Amino acid sequence: MESQYKAGMEGTEVSESRGSDLKVANPKTVRSSDFLLRLLALALTLAPAIVLGVAKETETVAITLVPTLPPLNVPVTAKWQYMSAFVYFVVTNSIACAYATLSLVLSIANRGGKSGLALMLIILDLVMVALLFSGNGAAAAIGVVGYKGNSHAQWNKVCNVFGIYCRHIAASIVLSLLGALVFFLLVVLSALSLHKKSP
Amino acid sequence: MESQYKAGMEGTEVSESRGSDLKVANPKTVRSSDFLLRLLALALTLAPAIVLGVAKETETVAITLVPTLPPLNVPVTAKWQYMSAFVYFVVTNSIACAYATLSLVLSIANRGGKSGLALMLIILDLVMVALLFSGNGAAAAIGVVGYKGNSHAQWNKVCNVFGIYCRHIAASIVLSLLGALVFFLLVVLSALSLHKKSP
Repeated sequence: MESQYKAGMEGTEVSESRGSDLKVANPKTVRSSDFLLRLLALALTLAPAIVLGVAKETETVAITLVPTLPPLNVPVTAKWQYMSAFVYFVVTNSIACAYATLSLVLSIANRGGKSGLALMLIILDLVMVALLFSGNGAAAAIGVVGYKGNSHAQWNKVCNVFGIYCRHIAASIVLSLLGALVFFLLVVLSALSLHKKSP
Repeated sequence: MESQYKAGMEGTEVSESRGSDLKVANPKTVRSSDFLLRLLALALTLAPAIVLGVAKETETVAITLVPTLPPLNVPVTAKWQYMSAFVYFVVTNSIACAYATLSLVLSIANRGGKSGLALMLIILDLVMVALLFSGNGAAAAIGVVGYKGNSHAQWNKVCNVFGIYCRHIAASIVLSLLGALVFFLLVVLSALSLHKKSP
């Protein structure tokens, strides 16, 4: 009986039941908004990975080695690979971007509405929320120290020297935060969709 | 046969249908695991807020002001208030702890199983996942720099001086990460529960 029922749900006769129609959200709207959000998530995780990935700035800094001699001009480079938090940020955004692409394909393949796959997508979307928010937190924490410095730990600010690099980092964090919010929204929409379906 | 099943779904005879019974999780088990996980989340967000909140270490550091004079012994204090990432970490854990307490009360009040409240709890659990993971990311990023230092930014490590303080931070991060995972699990369990209920 259960298998017959499942066949009915996955088939074409669902729209015949008026009561069910009232409770279940329009599957076409849900699918297209899901598709658009995943496309947006892909863009908003690809962009910060690229923006930070290509960010590299070399500045000439005057360093005084011996007080009696004139300062030496030394070229200093800022790269994302030099700070573990930025490496983590680029890695989390790359993972989220790869997953967004995969989930787009799975989402298109899942037009029939297989509920097992839908559940897996919710859980993986949730993993992306956790990953992206931790990556954003890490990058933002280092960004704040780089921008303002910390007198207690005697960590000097570096954004007065590497202005362009810091702007790249700020832009990456904003984009990635939007990407994380899109994944957040995907989980909320999936929960709403399941909630509407449940009796 | 299908129409009979549909009538069962829309009407009151759901419990008479064996197929449906097999699909719906035992509500009592779901409720008690939900209760225990919220209690655990409360403990695992309260503990890191306290552990980091009370962490304060004063060490005497020798500072050479003039090369010809002997170094001065200056007392230096490490506190969580001195680093914005740790302030954010304590705030996020405090919010999550307050919410865990509130959600415990709401969870007990919602024994009847009002679905609107259950949906609100899922979304707020998800907000806690995002908050806690970002707080953990921020604290861990600063913790790594404090532990290893960063030669490129010329940020010296501080954990060689403030050993006890750093151990407090590490313990807080581990506890808070476990708390974040409990909220993660709560969202997954809610999704599973909704998924089992949905046709």
